[in-house]
Amino acid sequence: MKKDTINIYDIAEMAGVSIATVSRVMNGSEKVSEKTRRKVMEIIEREGFTPNVFAQGLGLNTMHTVGILVPDIADLYMSAAVAWLEESLSEKGYECILSCSGFAPEEKQKHTEMLLTKHVDALIYVGSTYAGSGRSEDETEYIRKAAKQIPVFIINGYVKGDNVYSSVNEDEEAVYEVTLKLLEKGRRKPVFITDSGSYSALQKKRGFERAVKSRGMDRTEEMEIHVANSIYAVRDTLLAAGKEIDAVIATNDTIAVGAVKYAKAAGKRVPEELEIVGYNNSDIVMAVEPELSSIDNKTEQVCRDTVERMIKVLENSGNIDNSKVSVSCRFVERNTTHIN
Amino acid sequence: MKKDTINIYDIAEMAGVSIATVSRVMNGSEKVSEKTRRKVMEIIEREGFTPNVFAQGLGLNTMHTVGILVPDIADLYMSAAVAWLEESLSEKGYECILSCSGFAPEEKQKHTEMLLTKHVDALIYVGSTYAGSGRSEDETEYIRKAAKQIPVFIINGYVKGDNVYSSVNEDEEAVYEVTLKLLEKGRRKPVFITDSGSYSALQKKRGFERAVKSRGMDRTEEMEIHVANSIYAVRDTLLAAGKEIDAVIATNDTIAVGAVKYAKAAGKRVPEELEIVGYNNSDIVMAVEPELSSIDNKTEQVCRDTVERMIKVLENSGNIDNSKVSVSCRFVERNTTHIN
Repeated sequence: MKKDTINIYDIAEMAGVSIATVSRVMNGSEKVSEKTRRKVMEIIEREGFTPNVFAQGLGLNTMHTVGILVPDIADLYMSAAVAWLEESLSEKGYECILSCSGFAPEEKQKHTEMLLTKHVDALIYVGSTYAGSGRSEDETEYIRKAAKQIPVFIINGYVKGDNVYSSVNEDEEAVYEVTLKLLEKGRRKPVFITDSGSYSALQKKRGFERAVKSRGMDRTEEMEIHVANSIYAVRDTLLAAGKEIDAVIATNDTIAVGAVKYAKAAGKRVPEELEIVGYNNSDIVMAVEPELSSIDNKTEQVCRDTVERMIKVLENSGNIDNSKVSVSCRFVERNTTHIN
Repeated sequence: MKKDTINIYDIAEMAGVSIATVSRVMNGSEKVSEKTRRKVMEIIEREGFTPNVFAQGLGLNTMHTVGILVPDIADLYMSAAVAWLEESLSEKGYECILSCSGFAPEEKQKHTEMLLTKHVDALIYVGSTYAGSGRSEDETEYIRKAAKQIPVFIINGYVKGDNVYSSVNEDEEAVYEVTLKLLEKGRRKPVFITDSGSYSALQKKRGFERAVKSRGMDRTEEMEIHVANSIYAVRDTLLAAGKEIDAVIATNDTIAVGAVKYAKAAGKRVPEELEIVGYNNSDIVMAVEPELSSIDNKTEQVCRDTVERMIKVLENSGNIDNSKVSVSCRFVERNTTHIN
């Protein structure tokens, strides 16, 4: 390879053809004229271009290895997602290597670069933190840069860019609907509790605000509480706040469990005096008493679908929808709410 | 490198010196005679020997990357351990890449080989499944094979071999002591519940059996229940068994939470009629009601100590105790027991 940064876009440009054509040539497709094939191959050979993504199709050089990035592997949602990804990838004959990047922008970039040196065939980012807050495109530039080398997939976050495939949950809609149901049955003091300002957390917040505003409640900032992601921190924050509340919408299950602990400490009956909704439908929902109602964002399905898309992209088989895929959520009622 | 499998042992043998001497030469230590230094360097150069572990000391070729293997990343204990390892490694300037191997022997070997192709400086195995059941040395041969290339560390399991560094919890002692306390206060129908036949599970079982036998109870097999690692599976198994029990010692917290759910379903008061002890002191102990007493195996400390040892080995600084390190456990009493 003459220069490190050469990629499929450069080859396509030099040959004056589309990326799809370059890809077809690399994969030995018969749907390319002999003249075009020869022109593209000349440039490929001249430039010494053999990125993994196409070597895949040729059975050359590929390690059948996918890099997965996750900010915090101790998080219930993320460790479950990684486990599903690993299982799906393994079924397809792919190994995976995982990198824990933390949440800092420079670390996300550093860990991305590290994985690229490991000759992985694709990258999968788990968690909406990688999609940034949506305030600036700069936040996600490292993802588009990686996507110039290999295809990139985002679980639960949207990043715009070529060769970037996003899967998002319809979080806004899910929170909107649940909040509305709580308001319709008479709840008047709902709070939205989050530990994050990520893409996904902002979607949820928007759903909450839309619901309460639709019922004529405008002072939404008074109904929003930012906490640390720990059961006791949530309990103690709510006790200290001394707020009158009758419903909690939490952005994850750990926070919701903290709200259950708060109810117990404050002598409030759940769900009679305080209804609580968690998010992610993770294993912890069964441990708590009463068992937690939670919004299921279908982690298994999202992970399996992402791996299916990845295989299609890597093997250049089938039509790929490059725009984001949206997955609807499902409210699972257990014993901390009574709205269905 | 003339042959792929050449390692430090080969170099030491060819030079007729110890491994430590080869290592000192590679690290430029002054504690080697000029004659020995020259002899070792000649062989190293002739054989083209530059494994990562020593390149580390020379600042050459190393990726500052550690491979971590884990059977199931969705497991609470394992994901917490990986998070601690990642944090400690990161503090020391190391990246980590993780591979989820599952529990099958051939997969453990395959994933080990995959990580070795990624030019990692060391391997860390998380979980006692990697140490096998202790019935045959063959079970752990893949670990000794890897250790011929790079140093290998085991979290919570003991594997004998050169360049293999084990850290084990004193699980037998911890279970023995807690079980004995339960018997001393009058419990007569204790059960030991496990989902595993791993090194660590067998240690715990031994502690349980030693305690009950010391009180004249010999039919230990009737007091042992094997279950799937799921809250509801444990609850339903105990309900179906219809056994009279007054104490549960579980090999992990998920199983113990299942026992709490069983007590609720069976109308037994915890801890008055049924005392329950979990294991790992994971985050889930706070979610359940009553909050779970659990044996803390000090995951953070074990992980941090392992990373410290790894740095010493890689940088050849300080004396390394090649035998296993034992870490004592700590019983954390919450509300499912009353023995302290």
